[in-house]
Amino acid sequence: MRVAYNEQMTELADMLGVMAGLAGTAMEKATQSLLQADLALAEEVIGEHDQITDLSVACEERAFALLALQAPVAGDLRSIVSGIQIVADIDRMGALALHVAKAARRRHPNHVLPEEVNGYFAEMGRLAVALGAAAKEVLETRDPERAAKLREEDEAMDDLHKHLFTVLMDREWKHGVAAAVDVTLLGRYYERFADHAVEVGRRVIFLVTGKMPSEPEDTGEIN
Amino acid sequence: MRVAYNEQMTELADMLGVMAGLAGTAMEKATQSLLQADLALAEEVIGEHDQITDLSVACEERAFALLALQAPVAGDLRSIVSGIQIVADIDRMGALALHVAKAARRRHPNHVLPEEVNGYFAEMGRLAVALGAAAKEVLETRDPERAAKLREEDEAMDDLHKHLFTVLMDREWKHGVAAAVDVTLLGRYYERFADHAVEVGRRVIFLVTGKMPSEPEDTGEIN
Repeated sequence: MRVAYNEQMTELADMLGVMAGLAGTAMEKATQSLLQADLALAEEVIGEHDQITDLSVACEERAFALLALQAPVAGDLRSIVSGIQIVADIDRMGALALHVAKAARRRHPNHVLPEEVNGYFAEMGRLAVALGAAAKEVLETRDPERAAKLREEDEAMDDLHKHLFTVLMDREWKHGVAAAVDVTLLGRYYERFADHAVEVGRRVIFLVTGKMPSEPEDTGEIN
Repeated sequence: MRVAYNEQMTELADMLGVMAGLAGTAMEKATQSLLQADLALAEEVIGEHDQITDLSVACEERAFALLALQAPVAGDLRSIVSGIQIVADIDRMGALALHVAKAARRRHPNHVLPEEVNGYFAEMGRLAVALGAAAKEVLETRDPERAAKLREEDEAMDDLHKHLFTVLMDREWKHGVAAAVDVTLLGRYYERFADHAVEVGRRVIFLVTGKMPSEPEDTGEIN
């Protein structure tokens, strides 16, 4: 009984890691589809999204079964309940990658982004993928010190996001309102993706230590 | 023991209802501060936000204590775990209302919105507040039929949000890129607020029936 239980706990943890990996891969491909106006790649992200949703349902079911059948206490209880919360964050990361891919598909064969901001999105994409990979690593290692670093790494995303808005707000912006609207929403998607990765880290700290780090600001505010 | 347990279950449910009420009130005031460029009201929303965050922490702690001490099964287990998930949705609704208030404060004494789109935001605000109130009602009554209706009510929000983008994308838009960026983000905040209210409804259906309605699309996509 105990062996089966431990196996199921490990499986739940593994499934969360796999989900985080899928969300990171989705964001990586979505960014490339955005930068290259690559329709096939955008379609791939869109087609693969169900994998994340399906895993999300499977993780919740597994967590409920563990709670219902095993009546876990202390650390195990924290692991399972935090797992359910983490599912929601990773699910959202997948949805945000999907939004990026859909934006690329919507404007195809045109590029969504004016060339002027390509560099910003290449870098925001790189950071988002790195944060996704860090969230996956933290889910696998449960290292609270590594988890705490995600917040620092998110600062680079926030800085880029703020810079992007100064570009948009500049009187020299020559690409019209429609492009500005696309850039605004896309910037927000990347920034929120990173926030959810940080939130995964915060929850891992809680499940390991029993103490919840203070809630971060929604760092996507523009000034 | 059982009496104390039932009391604590009821208290958790009550706290969620109170939280939803606070998020709805915050969005109501935030919308008025936005439409009237009312700085005092914006400050009020910003100052009161901690109440929502504090309740969010208190709800999570209460839920954990119930899980740890009582080892609930079946319906009670679903109630508590769903409660934890619902906390995250309402917490987010509060954060989105906060964003609206901060936008009003940031541009004060100017109005954030060009007069042309005031009507859209007045109506989106009305719908958001109604959805918040419906979420509160559903948390209190646990009526799955009422909960299912939230999704229909959200359709009006989606329609408005789409219309808003046609106004933005119109060649006749005369208010510049900076205003367009503000309108884009604000529109997204209202639309996401409504999505989270729908999600609360979906989780109430699950906690009552044990069956999860299918996940809605993120309905904020523009075409």
